Amino acid sequence: MPLSTTVKPEPADPVARQVARGVCRLLDRLGHVGLTEFVLRSGRRADVIALGPGGELTIVEIKSSLADFRADGKWPEYLAFCERYYFAVPRGFPLEVLPEDQGLILADGYDAAILREAEHRPLAAARRKAVTLRFGQVAARRLQLLLDPQGADPGRPA
Amino acid sequence: MPLSTTVKPEPADPVARQVARGVCRLLDRLGHVGLTEFVLRSGRRADVIALGPGGELTIVEIKSSLADFRADGKWPEYLAFCERYYFAVPRGFPLEVLPEDQGLILADGYDAAILREAEHRPLAAARRKAVTLRFGQVAARRLQLLLDPQGADPGRPA
Repeated sequence: MPLSTTVKPEPADPVARQVARGVCRLLDRLGHVGLTEFVLRSGRRADVIALGPGGELTIVEIKSSLADFRADGKWPEYLAFCERYYFAVPRGFPLEVLPEDQGLILADGYDAAILREAEHRPLAAARRKAVTLRFGQVAARRLQLLLDPQGADPGRPA
Repeated sequence: MPLSTTVKPEPADPVARQVARGVCRLLDRLGHVGLTEFVLRSGRRADVIALGPGGELTIVEIKSSLADFRADGKWPEYLAFCERYYFAVPRGFPLEVLPEDQGLILADGYDAAILREAEHRPLAAARRKAVTLRFGQVAARRLQLLLDPQGADPGRPA
C-alpha cells in the first residue's frame, strides 16, 4: 500500500479540523506525538494516531457531530491497532451516545481535555512493530515533502 | 534526552547541506525515507538516518571536505546504530582516503549516486526497535512543529 503522501492531511470538515488541532496539542503536552489521517494496513484511516514516549500507540477518532458518529459503525476496527482508543468531540456533542468503555476527549481548535481515560489494552508485538514502523515512514515522508517539495515524488508508492 | 525539536535541521556548511539534499532524494527514490540531523542515544548526531520499506536502518555521514573527514575520528560509533553505513561526499572529494569497507555516495544538491554499496550488518532487535521508535517520534514532532507552530512547545523534552 502506498504511504500517504499528502503533506498537510487534515479532515475536510472544519469542526473536525479544529478538534484535530486541539487533540494534537493535548497529545504534545502529554509527551505523545500525533500524526493525522494515518492509513492503517486495513485501509481504514485513523483521524489521529499518536506515539508515546515509550512507544505506546493511541488512536483518536474525531466525531464532529451526532450524525458523524451515527454514520460510522466501523470504529471498533481501530481497537486492533492501538493500546488506547479515544473519541474526540467538540463542545455541544451529546456525550451520552458515546460508548462508555472508550476514552473521551473534549476539544476545540486551541486545546483539548481528557474527560474519560481510555482503557489500556496490550497490543501484539508484531502489530505494534508494524504500526510503529509505518508511523515513522509516513511522518518522515510528509516532512521530506514539506522540506524539499521539488525533490520527492509525491506519487511514489512505499 | 529531549527529542530534537529543530523544525528544519540541516548542516551549517553549505556544501554539506547540498549533499544532504541530494542524499535524501536518492534515498527517497530507493524507497527509503531520510531524516537529517538525528541525535542518537549516544548523543552523537547522524547527518542522515533513513528507514527502509522493511524497516532497514541506514546512516549516511556527510564529509564535505578532506579536512572535515580528518577531523572526525568517531564515525565508527555510528555502525552500532544502523544496518548499512555510507559516507556521502561532493564531487572533487579525494575518494581514496575513505575506508573501502564502508558504503560511498557521491552527491550534489540535485541528486546522488551510490558508488559503493554498504555491507549489510544485522542490528540487535532491541536496538533496532529503539532507533525506529525514536525515528518516528522525531519525524512526527518536527512535522507537528511545522504544521502548528503556535501549538507545540519546541522546548518540551520527550
